Amino acid sequence: MQRNTVKAVEWLDGQLVLLDQRVLPRLETYITCHDITSVIHSIKTMVVRGAPAIGIVAAYGVVISARSYYKSNMDPEQLDAYKDSVLADLNLLVEARPTAVNLMWAVEKMKQCFISTYQDESTLEALLMLAKTIHTEDIENNHKMGTLAANLMGSTSGRPFSVLTHCNAGSLATGGYGTALGAIRAAWENKLIDCVYADETRPWLQGARLTAWELAQEGIPVCLNADGAAAWLLANKNIKWVIVGADRVTANGDVANKIGTYSLAVLAKYHGVKMMVVAPSSTVDMALKTGCEIEIEMRTTQELTQVGDFQVAPIGVDAINPVFDVTPASLIDAIVTERGVIENPNTQKMMDIFS
Amino acid sequence: MQRNTVKAVEWLDGQLVLLDQRVLPRLETYITCHDITSVIHSIKTMVVRGAPAIGIVAAYGVVISARSYYKSNMDPEQLDAYKDSVLADLNLLVEARPTAVNLMWAVEKMKQCFISTYQDESTLEALLMLAKTIHTEDIENNHKMGTLAANLMGSTSGRPFSVLTHCNAGSLATGGYGTALGAIRAAWENKLIDCVYADETRPWLQGARLTAWELAQEGIPVCLNADGAAAWLLANKNIKWVIVGADRVTANGDVANKIGTYSLAVLAKYHGVKMMVVAPSSTVDMALKTGCEIEIEMRTTQELTQVGDFQVAPIGVDAINPVFDVTPASLIDAIVTERGVIENPNTQKMMDIFS
Repeated sequence: MQRNTVKAVEWLDGQLVLLDQRVLPRLETYITCHDITSVIHSIKTMVVRGAPAIGIVAAYGVVISARSYYKSNMDPEQLDAYKDSVLADLNLLVEARPTAVNLMWAVEKMKQCFISTYQDESTLEALLMLAKTIHTEDIENNHKMGTLAANLMGSTSGRPFSVLTHCNAGSLATGGYGTALGAIRAAWENKLIDCVYADETRPWLQGARLTAWELAQEGIPVCLNADGAAAWLLANKNIKWVIVGADRVTANGDVANKIGTYSLAVLAKYHGVKMMVVAPSSTVDMALKTGCEIEIEMRTTQELTQVGDFQVAPIGVDAINPVFDVTPASLIDAIVTERGVIENPNTQKMMDIFS
Repeated sequence: MQRNTVKAVEWLDGQLVLLDQRVLPRLETYITCHDITSVIHSIKTMVVRGAPAIGIVAAYGVVISARSYYKSNMDPEQLDAYKDSVLADLNLLVEARPTAVNLMWAVEKMKQCFISTYQDESTLEALLMLAKTIHTEDIENNHKMGTLAANLMGSTSGRPFSVLTHCNAGSLATGGYGTALGAIRAAWENKLIDCVYADETRPWLQGARLTAWELAQEGIPVCLNADGAAAWLLANKNIKWVIVGADRVTANGDVANKIGTYSLAVLAKYHGVKMMVVAPSSTVDMALKTGCEIEIEMRTTQELTQVGDFQVAPIGVDAINPVFDVTPASLIDAIVTERGVIENPNTQKMMDIFS
């Protein structure tokens, strides 16, 4: 049984429909993106979030952009204008968020397709087909990674154990099934685990709002905890793996992921708990040697000083809100991709799979 | 200049007046406790929090209890009833919260005074004098610890550095001036530090609501961060010390403090940042050999699933909310008490000062 009841991104009757993740789980609201501006706005404001999901939305965004400028039987001048308009939109798209590489990856794939087809009548069809393929392959990859991760967890386990996850790397963050939560779903189906501890994941509370909701919907036992309680849980509960997704993996195996991941990796090492990163190859950026080169997105301090419309901190207080951090490869026991598992990652092992 | 504008606890015109810390910083509201029930309720519901402040409030609570039963010229039978009633209240008082030992410490001191004076006409006066002494000495101790801590920080520093604190161990958590924030105040006055990073401290957000407010009021540069960002800050900012208070210190130097402290201690060790605990001797419990013996308070999961009245997590989701953790002595560089500084604490060093 591999249920997947949550769809963060859907192409429905020729429209891009997004589940608004800002108001989950209180409200299940869907937003239809009619133009590229609304696609970019949805990425920036985190209607949709999660590296793979952002990539998929960006791919559909290219379809929407091309469609908005396309006319049949364009003369050469019109074709040039069409090309320039779409490429200008693509530049805006890749700037929507800086840390997750899947956005650039998907836009680059779509761009190549666009450049090679924009003069043909079939360009829109080709773009839509590629976007759908990116979407479908993401789900397939998640299932592959789930199986690989469950095998890895099963190879060392006796009685059921618990796992700890951070942020949301589930159906909501991907095309479906999830990366970290895909691994957890597969482990649950294989009866390997008995409880998933979910860091609430301040400031955006993806753990409390999304992971707890997603797992509860499928009846997988989930227990929410404050981020600061992770060390206590690692010391006092039967947690064998910390399992997270990724927003970018560099050539040496360093991993950018939601702020707090680096903290968990240090804590896991201290407690002898294994650290697993689950991410498709679209998250790997072999152009960057190490995590030091990754741009860390800083978001508005209101994400810290307010919860919803509720003001918690003194008005005007200074705050710092890096929303990603970099975990060095030395703290990671396994990176699971659809191409295989990389244990104790380093540059050579990454090269072997991704060069 | 040692300003101290915030008073969490005040004995005013014969009344116990508490600043309601549940609604800070939005509202500055004061609650007057007219009977022992309201004193206990204020401790349980965290109108007042912070180990030393709870101890002081409990001391005044004994005064309020005794006063409510006292009559002049009691016969022996009335005296016995008076004694029994007050002692019953004291039992309820010590059960209000389990982890901070200052509560038990203060009630025990007051109980000894009560037992030796309850037959005298001067009993109420003696109790009030002792409560005021406990209050005054707490503030004096905080100033002493501030000086000791600043000397310790100054002994190794060149140019100004930053510090990171967790929860609120300031004026609001004590009789005044603060333990961890007293150390920070003293270091700031000595121009040792340039910025205080304040963990927001989920779930109760003492850092965002109280520490940021307290430091901002005095113009000490404070920068709020998500708890999960602490590791990133330790890796990327010029932080030399993590400075926290304590709720209980055991005979071997283990420290119970706000959930998340243990995490910070592991992270500090990993990053070569020093870890300082500032706590008066009333926080030391030599009756417990190690931190394993400390009861960790588990509070309602609503503290995690809601922020204010705002529901963040799915209704009915399971959660775990330990509000303290234990940091082993091996991760602590210095415990600063009013009796002196204990570097690299262990049982022998603790015995030398506290036996």
